[in-house]
Amino acid sequence: MLFDSLAIVGVGLIGGSVGLAAKARAATRHVVGVGRNPGTLAQAKSLGVIDEFSTDLAAVATADIVVFCSPVDQIARQAREAANYAKPGVLFTDAGSTKANIVRDLERQLPVHVRFVGAHPLAGSEKQGAENARAGLFEERVCVLTPTTMTDIAAVERVSLFWKALGCNVKRLTPEEHDLALATTSHLPHFVAALLAGQLPEKWRDFTATGFRDTTRIAVGDPTLWTAIAIENSLAISHAIDQFAERLGVLSEALLKSDGETLNHLLTEGKKVRDALGS
Amino acid sequence: MLFDSLAIVGVGLIGGSVGLAAKARAATRHVVGVGRNPGTLAQAKSLGVIDEFSTDLAAVATADIVVFCSPVDQIARQAREAANYAKPGVLFTDAGSTKANIVRDLERQLPVHVRFVGAHPLAGSEKQGAENARAGLFEERVCVLTPTTMTDIAAVERVSLFWKALGCNVKRLTPEEHDLALATTSHLPHFVAALLAGQLPEKWRDFTATGFRDTTRIAVGDPTLWTAIAIENSLAISHAIDQFAERLGVLSEALLKSDGETLNHLLTEGKKVRDALGS
Repeated sequence: MLFDSLAIVGVGLIGGSVGLAAKARAATRHVVGVGRNPGTLAQAKSLGVIDEFSTDLAAVATADIVVFCSPVDQIARQAREAANYAKPGVLFTDAGSTKANIVRDLERQLPVHVRFVGAHPLAGSEKQGAENARAGLFEERVCVLTPTTMTDIAAVERVSLFWKALGCNVKRLTPEEHDLALATTSHLPHFVAALLAGQLPEKWRDFTATGFRDTTRIAVGDPTLWTAIAIENSLAISHAIDQFAERLGVLSEALLKSDGETLNHLLTEGKKVRDALGS
Repeated sequence: MLFDSLAIVGVGLIGGSVGLAAKARAATRHVVGVGRNPGTLAQAKSLGVIDEFSTDLAAVATADIVVFCSPVDQIARQAREAANYAKPGVLFTDAGSTKANIVRDLERQLPVHVRFVGAHPLAGSEKQGAENARAGLFEERVCVLTPTTMTDIAAVERVSLFWKALGCNVKRLTPEEHDLALATTSHLPHFVAALLAGQLPEKWRDFTATGFRDTTRIAVGDPTLWTAIAIENSLAISHAIDQFAERLGVLSEALLKSDGETLNHLLTEGKKVRDALGS
């Protein structure tokens, strides 16, 4: 048993899956869920996702490791508050889709008895809520840890073991490189999908096929969560958008000139990368 | 039996699936495949996709209906040539992803003994070639017919029965509206997927998850086919890109201002449309 007691703050799809995976893979004996809504917490308990719950962050007091799975704009504040109740030597980690702000805030503001290691498991689903959580969500998924020169090395090792125990393939990036990478691999695609979907007039809905559905699938994500991600990582996303807009300009000019060579080049470049990723 | 003899020009994924579906659903007794490559045609015959084949368009002479499934920049030329061999009263239809140019050319240029009805079945796959063809490809898929005031009404009815026999749900649009609609529902998403994929540096490939994979999946399509589609439908695609670029500009400004309301609005607008499309 890696940790006797685990606390999860934010028991939705990700938090719930952390709970299920940690129990199923014997990473912990006991799981406490902390959230705002007693009704959804009670449901999560009845589904076996957590063993007990509270709407009070003081409930992290008994935990050996606390995982913050809340929206990215709430993680740093909750972690600071939870630190007031946490026992000495406790580990904090998180599942936030942005890292630079959270890591910087917590490295400056957490008391010394709490050791924080930023994390981002690249797992998710269009579905939301603990009722859609599953123990296998993290299997073979990359989890990015974002330690800095200020991060306790032993804590990084322990947190790495935790995410590995859930099934993740652990990799490391600096918080800043994480945010740049994810702006391109996740945040830009999310907004592009939403923009494409939003551009479709109702009268043309019948004329969409699998291509449109694939390309826009992630647009079903929660707008509130994604607005928070966008604001937390606005500079990196803006940079990715600028690059994308420049490439869109090249495409547009090639179309106006019927420049088949450039069109073919853009398509071939994309195909090569996508082929390399596999299905 | 709707048609005694069917000819398919271009025996790839779509053409091959037309052959399989027409035989499986008893829309025809006999299928002739016409193409450039005797090797792939022989393979298609051995797979039961076609009954006989030729590399010469004169082979359409015995057909009651001819379906052109070649790249969009070749359909009009091939149909004009095939008309020289076709028997009186023959029906021509196609599976091209663009319609305005093809329909305009053929309405002006085909001899009176040939009746053409433009069509576009919204079915496909990332996979290519007759070896990936399947009889069920068109089941429950929309097929857009694009008759004009010049199109023979009886021919439209017969061609409509043909595509329905393959499993399609037949709808009608003018060629121009088809091209505008598909620019938004298919052509723009294809280029956006290719641009997103092409923007990914190799060092960040490990940091892609299902969202990136879904959004860029169609980028694996054949660059040559899509270059031809882009050039055939350049004006409508340019218009769709302009709309998209404008919306990208709104997003970009909202990010720079940390304007959560606008970000949430864009995401909510996209989510509503995508939710309405279903999985």
